[in-house]
Amino acid sequence: MNENTPVFVKIKPAEMEAEFFRILIANGLSEDSAKTCAEVFTTNSMEGVYSHGVNRFPKFIEYIKNKLVLPDAVPAKVSGFGGIEQWNGNLGPGPLNALHATDRVMALAAKNGIGCVALGNTNHWMRGGLYGWKAAKQGFVFIGWSNTIANMPAWNATDNRLGNNPLVIAIPFANEAIVLDMAMSQYSFGAIEMASLKNEQLPVAGGYDVDGNITTDPNEILQSKKGLPAGYWKGAGLSLLLDMLAALLSGGKAVHNVTKQDAEYGLSQIYIAIDLKVLSNLKSINLLLQQIIDDYHQSIPVEPGKKIIYPGERVLMTRKENMDNGIPVVEQVWKIIKNL
Amino acid sequence: MNENTPVFVKIKPAEMEAEFFRILIANGLSEDSAKTCAEVFTTNSMEGVYSHGVNRFPKFIEYIKNKLVLPDAVPAKVSGFGGIEQWNGNLGPGPLNALHATDRVMALAAKNGIGCVALGNTNHWMRGGLYGWKAAKQGFVFIGWSNTIANMPAWNATDNRLGNNPLVIAIPFANEAIVLDMAMSQYSFGAIEMASLKNEQLPVAGGYDVDGNITTDPNEILQSKKGLPAGYWKGAGLSLLLDMLAALLSGGKAVHNVTKQDAEYGLSQIYIAIDLKVLSNLKSINLLLQQIIDDYHQSIPVEPGKKIIYPGERVLMTRKENMDNGIPVVEQVWKIIKNL
Repeated sequence: MNENTPVFVKIKPAEMEAEFFRILIANGLSEDSAKTCAEVFTTNSMEGVYSHGVNRFPKFIEYIKNKLVLPDAVPAKVSGFGGIEQWNGNLGPGPLNALHATDRVMALAAKNGIGCVALGNTNHWMRGGLYGWKAAKQGFVFIGWSNTIANMPAWNATDNRLGNNPLVIAIPFANEAIVLDMAMSQYSFGAIEMASLKNEQLPVAGGYDVDGNITTDPNEILQSKKGLPAGYWKGAGLSLLLDMLAALLSGGKAVHNVTKQDAEYGLSQIYIAIDLKVLSNLKSINLLLQQIIDDYHQSIPVEPGKKIIYPGERVLMTRKENMDNGIPVVEQVWKIIKNL
Repeated sequence: MNENTPVFVKIKPAEMEAEFFRILIANGLSEDSAKTCAEVFTTNSMEGVYSHGVNRFPKFIEYIKNKLVLPDAVPAKVSGFGGIEQWNGNLGPGPLNALHATDRVMALAAKNGIGCVALGNTNHWMRGGLYGWKAAKQGFVFIGWSNTIANMPAWNATDNRLGNNPLVIAIPFANEAIVLDMAMSQYSFGAIEMASLKNEQLPVAGGYDVDGNITTDPNEILQSKKGLPAGYWKGAGLSLLLDMLAALLSGGKAVHNVTKQDAEYGLSQIYIAIDLKVLSNLKSINLLLQQIIDDYHQSIPVEPGKKIIYPGERVLMTRKENMDNGIPVVEQVWKIIKNL
């Protein structure tokens, strides 16, 4: 521990949500919208994604103040055919638009077996995994992604042309869910900032220094602002195609359009859902998943005794810990929020 | 060049296809099936995916001889609801089942905007990209994946529990397509074998040695049979969820079931298609993609003058080269095929 190590305070979820609600109302959200947005930021924090919960909240308010997020805008349907619909987010709050799209795609899947909502002109959804958890807990497979501002170079290139475009895949399991929520970069910038705060090197290479060398030093990466695609050419290729699909299916902006703006707004997102109730093998699905997880958990760990966990498994533990003992928040961040 | 460097011969596509056709007929495929299968293996070779074209052909015949691939089996529909269908591949030839599923999912998408075919009890599709190219050239977005036998450990684990489950995403573009065809491992075993043949180290870490250390040495990886997930925990997580989805949606086998068998057969696969014709912005899609590609091509290369190519771009060049000059085949492989 050194002078830079952040001090944490523990905030009860209800207290955090009330604080967010107060600030959102003061910034022009309706009572319903403020309640939902406050819940999203609190849940994200309670489930351990602080970078897109409490730590991000001041920036969300700044976006509202700068009229990049329009607090009373609601999404509008552009077109629809069978199981697919295009929506315009009208630059409304990203989490509200994302929840709307998630509800809509579940309705489409319930009717058609599989549905797709392509949402353009929306804003940062904060933590994509939230929408996966929501859909999965209602019995739907969920596949969704968002584009972002350019924050990583193509493979063999030096300048940022690709977004880290987070991808979410969620599967209902035992009244909870298995949820993969992964950016196309090896690390989120939130994780890189945390390593920097703690004066730690990243476990594996995570970006470039200003001279274009691949590095594990979080400070070098924060300076260059150049992340490394996960799996080098693989994360780069997947990022490019996810962006193409988000933009072409929604009719919205691609990463290069977003990047030419003065800030990250007007994003494009895809939501796909499959209704498990329509499958002939519905009754055997939970057992099938349990068998896959049992096999996975039998993996021999490199470090003896260390549990090999599946995507989303840590969320269950963090949620319980934070519900019981309060959500850990960097003291300085909480002071800033109290003063908003 | 040393004594191990393979010698190549150039085979005209028509000659290769005729040779495959002769052997397939001799091994019990009907005239139609043999023609289609011969085309698949030839196209894969012509488009540069030799590992799942000409180099794989003898193993495909071996699977037929061992009754793991049933030459006259055809897929049967298990259930359907709206845009989603479950099919049983009945252990027929993987490429024929995959082509059938691709045709079927395009029909579902044409009717419902988006469609999904989940195919269980099928066999290795050889090169997944082929089905992406096919669908995209007919105006459909294609997203598909297959599970495999376990060939890489979970992250922080030492024993193989995950498949490298290839994922294909294809998008129609300018009468051709943009096609990402990526296994969840950093390298395909075909690429690792090629590096070994050429006595080269891999450019980045690609697997484990027998002691569990991450290595760039292809021979060490071929010995341990343990690939490295692309992006470490990211490729591992994505692999796990792709397997879960393939098995639960099809009602077929998961990676751990396939791995307990004596060989890699009875796989599960997902095919998703979206019909671009139903979108309100159909006319602007090609321009939108061209603008994304133009921006991407403006990337500043690490190596001055080197072109930064998009997924599938190399296929266009290789296809032309091999159509004009013949398909390069390792002389010894061609001898084996001539004697089948």
